[in-house]
Amino acid sequence: MIKVGVIGYGEVGKGAIVALKNCTDMELKAVFTQRVPKSVCFNEKGVDICSYKDILRYEKQIDVMINCGGSARDLPKTTPETARYFNIVDSYDVHSLIPEHLVKVNSSSLKGGKTAIVSVGWDPGIFSVERLCFSSFLPKGNSCTFWGKGVSRGHTNAVKEIDGVIDAVQFTIPSEKALDAACRGEILSLSKKEMHVRECYVSVEKGANTSEIEEKIKKMPHYFEGYETKVFFVSEEEVKEKSRNSGHGGRVIRSGITGEDTCHVASSSLSLGSNPEFTGSVLICYARAAYRLNIRGEIGGLCAFDIPPILLSPLMRDEAVKAFL
Amino acid sequence: MIKVGVIGYGEVGKGAIVALKNCTDMELKAVFTQRVPKSVCFNEKGVDICSYKDILRYEKQIDVMINCGGSARDLPKTTPETARYFNIVDSYDVHSLIPEHLVKVNSSSLKGGKTAIVSVGWDPGIFSVERLCFSSFLPKGNSCTFWGKGVSRGHTNAVKEIDGVIDAVQFTIPSEKALDAACRGEILSLSKKEMHVRECYVSVEKGANTSEIEEKIKKMPHYFEGYETKVFFVSEEEVKEKSRNSGHGGRVIRSGITGEDTCHVASSSLSLGSNPEFTGSVLICYARAAYRLNIRGEIGGLCAFDIPPILLSPLMRDEAVKAFL
Repeated sequence: MIKVGVIGYGEVGKGAIVALKNCTDMELKAVFTQRVPKSVCFNEKGVDICSYKDILRYEKQIDVMINCGGSARDLPKTTPETARYFNIVDSYDVHSLIPEHLVKVNSSSLKGGKTAIVSVGWDPGIFSVERLCFSSFLPKGNSCTFWGKGVSRGHTNAVKEIDGVIDAVQFTIPSEKALDAACRGEILSLSKKEMHVRECYVSVEKGANTSEIEEKIKKMPHYFEGYETKVFFVSEEEVKEKSRNSGHGGRVIRSGITGEDTCHVASSSLSLGSNPEFTGSVLICYARAAYRLNIRGEIGGLCAFDIPPILLSPLMRDEAVKAFL
Repeated sequence: MIKVGVIGYGEVGKGAIVALKNCTDMELKAVFTQRVPKSVCFNEKGVDICSYKDILRYEKQIDVMINCGGSARDLPKTTPETARYFNIVDSYDVHSLIPEHLVKVNSSSLKGGKTAIVSVGWDPGIFSVERLCFSSFLPKGNSCTFWGKGVSRGHTNAVKEIDGVIDAVQFTIPSEKALDAACRGEILSLSKKEMHVRECYVSVEKGANTSEIEEKIKKMPHYFEGYETKVFFVSEEEVKEKSRNSGHGGRVIRSGITGEDTCHVASSSLSLGSNPEFTGSVLICYARAAYRLNIRGEIGGLCAFDIPPILLSPLMRDEAVKAFL
């Protein structure tokens, strides 16, 4: 059994814990939190809940850590500092800063002779691998990634900050027109703005000027300007109800040609009932891979591109060959 | 530049040669044929065409061989015998016999210190990797693979053998009903027969009994019995025209649950304008990987499951991380 620690007891951490219960080759030993452990409502039998500060006490007891902290503040600090002492995986998702994160984690892992796999989940992660592979198989072509339908936290927060808004939730939705064109293999040079529609559900204070708020949302630079944005004014209860939807998903589509003009379309899609539960599930597969690579002596900071698919599976190679090849 | 040899100058071999023309890091040096080289209509400038018997003369000149022979007779013989002297890839596709093929090739490659990757293409190959990964991410679930629309050679030949048939072509087509149900995440326990429809275009001799031929096709055991089969009687020209369509494709769909009852659907699809050109394109990516693995000292017989995705790409790792992660 691979002995696992989970850092962070938020949505993704809970998703990873749920996924571990379906694993026959991995067991959860401890959860590490930045909060005061006693203040955390925690009821996993036989599992320790500890302060993140005390993580080194578990050096001999844990084979691999799953870091489920947030990308904005937690992961850039906790993955590099933990990677020196433990094999570790995380789902760091600030795309433009991944190379820098990878360099830091690599240096720390090498010092400790450990293996780290960063930025795994579905995007970055599964979709990154699809983009890489599809563009290798069809080098003359065009790729696009659609996200949604799902809640975007950054956009939700941006709407919440507008004067007069009590609560809000924002869904990113692929534009059906753009999606259909991409599936038909029409080479697209569309921007993200043309590929997605934004839907906002907003509850406002009594007497608030809704047309002014709608205008402010639709013209908000960086967030909504240039997008097809729909604003719905609803009750607080309705916003809460919609916010409970943790579904997400997306689609990677590559169209390309071989020879003179032979057209091919490769695509991969995910429709997720729960974004954090699926992300947790992906993280534990890469945790299995990190542990196995470390045993083989392959140390340092890695990403999804470096991982042979067989290492993600609980099956032995010959079983997997029979079952899936 | 990686120096490449192609074994077999049939449809897939020509597909690989077409794909190599888009490669900036690989160059074709020689094509090996089982036929008399002089009898082959060959016009690739600067490329040798040689008898397969003389392949060992190229031992020092070729970094990796792409074996594009047929699975029925060529590959079980030529891949193991060549794997001792060259790095090699093939697209051996008799699913039930792959484990045996892999054992033979592994033994031969190890003897020569070479690297072989067998059974790559889109299925087995890309779809195998998707089945493995999806079932790792969603261990509680159900997978299904749809094939088509595309020509099935075995079924085409079976129809051609019926008395009174001049020419025929058979298309395998996913059943729309089954495909829709799978995409909605409905756990399916459908057989291949319920998942696919078979369409036959048949030209017959003057005065042939078409209703008898139709009956014979629809009731043919192993091939058509139990399938929804449509038979169209058309002219010889129309059969020829339809036979020219080398398109194919398919879809892997996994639906699974996490936690109590949270449903997720992961799917991957290919819509190919030319089956042999796409297969050739995939083969050259795995040839690149075989060569790189050999340089690293990773020898023996491998399959798609063993290959880190980064090795398929012509890009350097840091470029790929920036572009696709």
